[in-house]
Amino acid sequence: MATIKDVAKAAGVSVATVSRVINKSPKASQSSIDSVTKAMNELGYRPNAAARALVSQSTNTIGVLVGDVSDPFFGTMVKAIDKVAHQNGKHLLVGNGYHSADDERRAIELLINNRCDALVIHAKALSDQELIDFSKEVQGLVIINRHVPELEDRCVYLDNHKGAYLATEFLIRQGHEKIACITSSHDIEDVNERIGGYRQALADHQIPLSDAYIESGEPDNDGGEDAMMHLLTKGIEFTGVVAYNDYMAAGALSILDENGLDVPSQVSIVGFDDGFIARYVKPRLTTVRYPIQMMAEKAANLALELAAGDAPTEPEVMRYSPTMVKRDSVKALD
Amino acid sequence: MATIKDVAKAAGVSVATVSRVINKSPKASQSSIDSVTKAMNELGYRPNAAARALVSQSTNTIGVLVGDVSDPFFGTMVKAIDKVAHQNGKHLLVGNGYHSADDERRAIELLINNRCDALVIHAKALSDQELIDFSKEVQGLVIINRHVPELEDRCVYLDNHKGAYLATEFLIRQGHEKIACITSSHDIEDVNERIGGYRQALADHQIPLSDAYIESGEPDNDGGEDAMMHLLTKGIEFTGVVAYNDYMAAGALSILDENGLDVPSQVSIVGFDDGFIARYVKPRLTTVRYPIQMMAEKAANLALELAAGDAPTEPEVMRYSPTMVKRDSVKALD
Repeated sequence: MATIKDVAKAAGVSVATVSRVINKSPKASQSSIDSVTKAMNELGYRPNAAARALVSQSTNTIGVLVGDVSDPFFGTMVKAIDKVAHQNGKHLLVGNGYHSADDERRAIELLINNRCDALVIHAKALSDQELIDFSKEVQGLVIINRHVPELEDRCVYLDNHKGAYLATEFLIRQGHEKIACITSSHDIEDVNERIGGYRQALADHQIPLSDAYIESGEPDNDGGEDAMMHLLTKGIEFTGVVAYNDYMAAGALSILDENGLDVPSQVSIVGFDDGFIARYVKPRLTTVRYPIQMMAEKAANLALELAAGDAPTEPEVMRYSPTMVKRDSVKALD
Repeated sequence: MATIKDVAKAAGVSVATVSRVINKSPKASQSSIDSVTKAMNELGYRPNAAARALVSQSTNTIGVLVGDVSDPFFGTMVKAIDKVAHQNGKHLLVGNGYHSADDERRAIELLINNRCDALVIHAKALSDQELIDFSKEVQGLVIINRHVPELEDRCVYLDNHKGAYLATEFLIRQGHEKIACITSSHDIEDVNERIGGYRQALADHQIPLSDAYIESGEPDNDGGEDAMMHLLTKGIEFTGVVAYNDYMAAGALSILDENGLDVPSQVSIVGFDDGFIARYVKPRLTTVRYPIQMMAEKAANLALELAAGDAPTEPEVMRYSPTMVKRDSVKALD
């Protein structure tokens, strides 16, 4: 493959001149543009992104950190950011954090070292302080799905409290009072906020329930199975369940089915996310919609604006509200 | 942010010297290593991937082209490649081709322009010739999920014929003879190979069936619904169905359910992929396993070897075989 040096030699100019032509610098003379373009064509030289980046001190790359790209939730997020990147002539560098502080840190360092001028970061394991430090270093860094108060104008996040409140109140309005909560065992803010929303909805409707109605597990299908099994084993009486996400709801459905409890005629259940599987399980899940696509587009656009040094002129909506999606897993109590 | 020029100035050396130190060139003297390292620390300068790439004419990035990263099939593929990248101190640049020749071409160009030294390409819309041209340009380019005969040693692909044959024969062994085929309407080799496998299994067991038993649609849930609707509307009598993928099988399940046909007691159905949803639909899908994770790891390792100029020493397994996964959607005929 021809290098920038080969082009410079063939065109009889310096490497710096070739670089100026590639970068469409106003300092490039017409004669050097002509000779360099000719040499590039003859040698089949591709304008080198690395050379361009060195001169402009930026790349046309948006860096994205996700938890795990094989989870469709993050796939949807990456796709939405890719759409914004495409519209702006940029492309994506993707890192996986696997919900580990070490992996998250390493991935962010890599993205920064590759001079991504805009970064959309989904990090659940790093401390607020580390995120604040990174954001000082990179002006185009935006945090998604997390609220760091010190970075108020750079966090695009969900009102988790409201989501769980909506789900619980939805069941209450259908006549349910004995409502169990299946939640995640992970120590992240989302979990506490959602438990808070569940409790608030019960309190607002004068429904006293003990903490025995709350059961936790890994935030996946197996964890949902575990949590439902524990509820049944403890002999908790319930007619409704709010789940931390659709995966846990799906796991709970399996255990209810194995134990001869029909959904929704005997037990109603509400998921969270409206993710990939909500329409595939049976019955199809009534769930809380996480507007991840809209939020990811917003985060990507904001990251590009900040990277370009354009402060948003108007106050922006940064906290998004979940909404209910009615399907087949909830039935009104007679 | 400090630039390489700032470091050179602070260290009292040339930019080229700084670059040599960063790249651990043997030509860098100990005194320049010392002064540059000191200046980098003082200025908080991060070794610049672009500067490194310019000198070495390569980046430590693996480029990946997928169809659509929000599809868990591709998410799994990207994750497997990320694992290999991680093991080799590399990271990922991801492009989406959206099954369009223009998008695939543009994404590959971008990856090449960013000097990815290894490329794993999933392209279904580009012609063989274009892929051959790209592969001449990039020695570390590997094609996944497609067989281009001229690139025999650079294609990691699935034996699609065998997969459909397995699925069909599995139903035949359970006593089914009237077996419908729900396939994709896309004009790609996978489709013809799988239809070929279905026909071959029927022929090998002396089961004559008309082409009316084959119905096609988009390779997704809606397409599966459409295809099943058409089969029922045409009044085709069948007890078994082989589907192009799990999504189409899931769509078919919905239509069968709406029409009061129980799976598996009245109709048995086999999916393809063993993807994300196979365990979530009800009944859980008996399906053909697409070993995408194993294949993606293989493709990534091969791309890195080829990029480094290391020809594999032994003949490699490039064509992978699908296997059957038994779950709950097939029942033996009485």
